[in-house]
Amino acid sequence: MTHDIQIKPTSIVVFGGTGDLAKRKLFPAFFNLYMDGRMPSQFQIIALGRQPYEQESFRDYVHENILAFSRNTNFSQEQWQAFQDHITFHKAHIDDDSSYDDLNMLFNKNDALWGERGNRLFYLSIAPSFIEQVSSGLKRFQLADDVTGDRIIFEKPFGYDKSSAIRLNKLLANTFHEQQIYRIDHYLGKETVQNILAFRFGNSIFEPLWNNRHIDSVQITVAEQVGVENRGGYYDHSGALRDMIQNHLLQILCMVAMEAPEEFESEQIRDRKADLLKSVRRIKREDINHYTVRAQYDAGQINGLPKKAYRDEPGVNPLSTTETFVAMKFYIDNERWLGVPFYMRTGKSLQQKHSAVVINFKDSTKTKFPANKNSIENNQLTINIQPEMDIRLSFMSKQPGLDMEMTPAQMVFDYFQCASNGPEAYETLLLDALDGDSTLFMRSDQVEEAWDIIEAIQEEWEHGDLSPIYSYPAGSWGPEAADELLKRQGHRWLSSFPPFTQPAIQKHGTTV
Amino acid sequence: MTHDIQIKPTSIVVFGGTGDLAKRKLFPAFFNLYMDGRMPSQFQIIALGRQPYEQESFRDYVHENILAFSRNTNFSQEQWQAFQDHITFHKAHIDDDSSYDDLNMLFNKNDALWGERGNRLFYLSIAPSFIEQVSSGLKRFQLADDVTGDRIIFEKPFGYDKSSAIRLNKLLANTFHEQQIYRIDHYLGKETVQNILAFRFGNSIFEPLWNNRHIDSVQITVAEQVGVENRGGYYDHSGALRDMIQNHLLQILCMVAMEAPEEFESEQIRDRKADLLKSVRRIKREDINHYTVRAQYDAGQINGLPKKAYRDEPGVNPLSTTETFVAMKFYIDNERWLGVPFYMRTGKSLQQKHSAVVINFKDSTKTKFPANKNSIENNQLTINIQPEMDIRLSFMSKQPGLDMEMTPAQMVFDYFQCASNGPEAYETLLLDALDGDSTLFMRSDQVEEAWDIIEAIQEEWEHGDLSPIYSYPAGSWGPEAADELLKRQGHRWLSSFPPFTQPAIQKHGTTV
Repeated sequence: MTHDIQIKPTSIVVFGGTGDLAKRKLFPAFFNLYMDGRMPSQFQIIALGRQPYEQESFRDYVHENILAFSRNTNFSQEQWQAFQDHITFHKAHIDDDSSYDDLNMLFNKNDALWGERGNRLFYLSIAPSFIEQVSSGLKRFQLADDVTGDRIIFEKPFGYDKSSAIRLNKLLANTFHEQQIYRIDHYLGKETVQNILAFRFGNSIFEPLWNNRHIDSVQITVAEQVGVENRGGYYDHSGALRDMIQNHLLQILCMVAMEAPEEFESEQIRDRKADLLKSVRRIKREDINHYTVRAQYDAGQINGLPKKAYRDEPGVNPLSTTETFVAMKFYIDNERWLGVPFYMRTGKSLQQKHSAVVINFKDSTKTKFPANKNSIENNQLTINIQPEMDIRLSFMSKQPGLDMEMTPAQMVFDYFQCASNGPEAYETLLLDALDGDSTLFMRSDQVEEAWDIIEAIQEEWEHGDLSPIYSYPAGSWGPEAADELLKRQGHRWLSSFPPFTQPAIQKHGTTV
Repeated sequence: MTHDIQIKPTSIVVFGGTGDLAKRKLFPAFFNLYMDGRMPSQFQIIALGRQPYEQESFRDYVHENILAFSRNTNFSQEQWQAFQDHITFHKAHIDDDSSYDDLNMLFNKNDALWGERGNRLFYLSIAPSFIEQVSSGLKRFQLADDVTGDRIIFEKPFGYDKSSAIRLNKLLANTFHEQQIYRIDHYLGKETVQNILAFRFGNSIFEPLWNNRHIDSVQITVAEQVGVENRGGYYDHSGALRDMIQNHLLQILCMVAMEAPEEFESEQIRDRKADLLKSVRRIKREDINHYTVRAQYDAGQINGLPKKAYRDEPGVNPLSTTETFVAMKFYIDNERWLGVPFYMRTGKSLQQKHSAVVINFKDSTKTKFPANKNSIENNQLTINIQPEMDIRLSFMSKQPGLDMEMTPAQMVFDYFQCASNGPEAYETLLLDALDGDSTLFMRSDQVEEAWDIIEAIQEEWEHGDLSPIYSYPAGSWGPEAADELLKRQGHRWLSSFPPFTQPAIQKHGTTV
């Protein structure tokens, strides 16, 4: 995570080099790293695709995409020229041995040029069904046989359920060493998500409060305003539980709730995360309605525009029971968290894009304030992940004025106040992978534990009949049942967008 | 402190009604309370002075002063007219019995008009030497004999040392009930000072941290930029220890360090403050240089203008050894604070006006961050009293960028962001006194304990020869010895003005 040592020369191979991810994220990220002087001093990016491309026209295509999607669009012709020399397009078929031969040749050429065996970074931006073939190709041609220098980045989904994840991990383990495998969850590369650990473990004052003596409940929200867009066909076989809860939200849970590592270091952090997932209470199928709510968006309005129902989206089965919204609660059965509910919710076609963690502290004030006008609210720490990127501590303060009246107030730290042009998640993650730092990537045991946590829910939702699927109008905050889930324990969803802002503190009293 | 019930009709008597305090503070405060609709529905302000005044010309004089010194200067002729009808000037001599007779007559007239015996509030804005006479006059003429409704406000100094304070308190106790006595320290009426208690006791998350397990040290600074101005004659017989430490700074110490009252209520709060003062470790004369530093300002520059030395100020003895600066440390020998140094400093002709409390937390982070570029600073909570009025929590955050580097950051709550025109301290205190709330006023035992705390220092400084008197240039932050005092324990004065501001968070990396 801190990159001080010069990164070795590296051959970077992008499987799916003409695909959407490469176009929007990977090339812009490599370019930004380059502009920031953070790429290895020697590198070549080999984009693989099934359609032929002239080198020059491929580079033009990358140039166009960088102008469209990169945060650096103000660069000189010379800078572009220098960068594009590092890009090679190569036509390849993953089931064709000659493609691997070609790769080998390209690597050898690079190594000869660099005067040393370069590292190799493979980015598999391909459908899960092709993973086995590519892996076995890399293995057979010994293209990734340097355990410390060669790395393979995989995109989610990492399996479809627990057993498929185990199968996939076994397959990969037969081909690579675990330390070579980089399972990417771009959510973990976000500045505000990374900062959760920095904030917790780099400060003395929060850790003493970070337990069930002082924390009443925790909420994690990842709300999307977009619907399934053109991904209906894929999404309808996935759903919010698998697409969001199993990875992003459980990973955030890990960061919020894990024990402190002795050192801020990849394996220790991943160990503590895996420990945390093991401590998450498994939900029994018969208790499902006590812990979970699922729902699907109906027609509605978002930002004043009509939005069609999920079942009417292209690619979606008109009788689909796939959930586009999940609200649920978890318990963590360890000493620190016993009895503290962790509420999670995520959904599509919601009112606003809004991701946040809210730590809701217990009211343990000893002093009784005069009852009139002095309702004391619990302290809350809100970590806004996106689109707001800030940390807010809400507390009670004296209302300025002649009376001792208490009023809620906030201390705010705006993460991007001075750095609105910060790196994108993919830049951070690609640099980490180039440098061999796997802190922000998921280890096989984390993935399997996360699937294990939701296994019973998956099974009941797919094969059982205990759990109703609610609907909610597009543009709302989800079904009422999601509110009921919290109300049963005297809670409510906090920090709906727009986030709580500095209350207007009014001068007290009337003017004659 | 919360005023809900209609205040009884009140006759307000200002002894020293033509003096500087009445002119700059008291009349503007009464007027502002009136404009805010917070004065009793029926009241009369009787200004007493030795020089004769026509009613009309006195009212004009008040009008002028309100325009000059009040925060409300935008009022109509009708509003002024309505207010001025409540003002009466009365020529009086405190040693003349007829003056007390006159007062009695004026009270009776008011009471007849109001149809009930009104409350009486006496503000003694007079030199300490006159207190005995006025008190005995009020007593002899039974002008303040309603123990619950009649109140007397005294200005500091409350004595000159412990024995004179005890003497004064005895005198007052023979004349009034303690509950009638309001010892005013305007510092305690400041919004940001009042908020210290609200902040500590209205929130759950600070109290668990508020002890020697989590707090390393505390600093209280009350720095003045002004010199002694035209008060040299008075000041030269007082000095910073007696003029500032004994009252303002020890009172702030009480608010920062006292135990929580069961209820936010006057007597309980004053009990806890008195308890705290009793727990403050008494400094032995022979240890004086371990705990204290005194100094006097020499010639220097403030804001680019030359400033003469203290000994050259009008009214000051050219060989004066009166201190204009004190830095010292206190220990509080109770369970909560054992071993935590409380550093205090106050002085005149310093670089900036700046009053603040800084809570410096211990470094108890468990996680070791990679050493390079990651120096973790201790958390600090800064309560800025004036001229800034805010609360800042400084903490470590991830530096936005591609590396996991920690950087200091702050959460800020600006107390007056939305209420820059809040009440002045005197408004708060006068309203409290009108309403019979003595929370913010000092009880006799508090005053005596505070004198007891500094008694040995006073004696050594006045009569001993152990303690050098340092000098410092006007416009500096005091003598080096004040820095040494902290350095011995590995500390340094924090938050010199300008206060720590949001660091400019820079995007990492160089651009090619």
